[in-house]
Amino acid sequence: MYQIAIVIFDEFTDIDFFLMRDILGRTTTDWTVKVLGTKPSHRSSLGMTVATDGHVAQVADADVVLFSSGYKGVPAALADPEFMSALKLDPSRQLLGSICAGSFFFAKLGLLDNISATTHPDAKPALVAMGVEVEDSALVINGNIATAGGCLSSLYLTGWIAERLFDRAKRREIHRQLIPAGQADVFDALIESSIASAIR
Amino acid sequence: MYQIAIVIFDEFTDIDFFLMRDILGRTTTDWTVKVLGTKPSHRSSLGMTVATDGHVAQVADADVVLFSSGYKGVPAALADPEFMSALKLDPSRQLLGSICAGSFFFAKLGLLDNISATTHPDAKPALVAMGVEVEDSALVINGNIATAGGCLSSLYLTGWIAERLFDRAKRREIHRQLIPAGQADVFDALIESSIASAIR
Repeated sequence: MYQIAIVIFDEFTDIDFFLMRDILGRTTTDWTVKVLGTKPSHRSSLGMTVATDGHVAQVADADVVLFSSGYKGVPAALADPEFMSALKLDPSRQLLGSICAGSFFFAKLGLLDNISATTHPDAKPALVAMGVEVEDSALVINGNIATAGGCLSSLYLTGWIAERLFDRAKRREIHRQLIPAGQADVFDALIESSIASAIR
Repeated sequence: MYQIAIVIFDEFTDIDFFLMRDILGRTTTDWTVKVLGTKPSHRSSLGMTVATDGHVAQVADADVVLFSSGYKGVPAALADPEFMSALKLDPSRQLLGSICAGSFFFAKLGLLDNISATTHPDAKPALVAMGVEVEDSALVINGNIATAGGCLSSLYLTGWIAERLFDRAKRREIHRQLIPAGQADVFDALIESSIASAIR
């Protein structure tokens, strides 16, 4: 069983978290999903309280570590020594992914030095200011590090994870229940091309 | 200010609810969103506890009423006299929408008599068994009643609401933050054609 960790903090963006959590959480074989944070629960931007399954330091034990976003939450977490010092990540043995401003954590940790990345278009200037080369792409993959921009890019990020851990069939399986009725071919082509064009 | 009600119950499908809730909840002008149920809070399929803003009987006061889905939750709610008797809906003055098995409520209330509808492909046989003509479409719109199938069809359902209450600009505005970076044109075309082809 692979272990997938999703990292949250106060004022995380609802949809960025819930979309990843639900897509990945429907799978009860093959991997487990843990939601990690610095507190027993964190509140979302819209006021949802989400319980964590453990402290963020447990990211070190995960095969996959995913970071949610947050317009207010990310800057606060970046400034939190407890949060940042707990982020022992290793892209040589872990798959690392972020949605929207989640890529700021990778930037702060130096993981985006010399590689390009993406984020939500509204957050691009702030990521550029951190010294990162930012592309206007839904997904940018450099080895084991994938950054995604725009909430629905969760589709591509989770699809990449399923393909890296298993294969395309697994990717289709985890998305099957989400795809609009009658549009399986449209979305399959969109997801496949978005992942393929993301690899640097 | 328009009032939008989203109806939940125990064992609702996480993504079907959270996607609608987040897309519509980012708007702080133009409309308010209330989450209604029979209890102070309801638990999702994945164990999230969501507080309600009022009793489901308040659907009568809303301009728009949206129903989330739930593999186990919908059958239980359909069998709950308190829940079903509170659903005083009026498609002559309200916009009514459902995602996936949410359309079962409309069927039970007789609102789909003589019109076609959609649901999640996995739930199609059950909706057919209720006497409904089911289409393999992402969205089916008959007057003020819209049914959607497949979680991501929330995009089309919420887009239809924004267009009916306001216009296309409003639809683009509520989706802007969700659209994958660099794919605005792709999604605009997909959303526009899905809504246009849904009208019966």
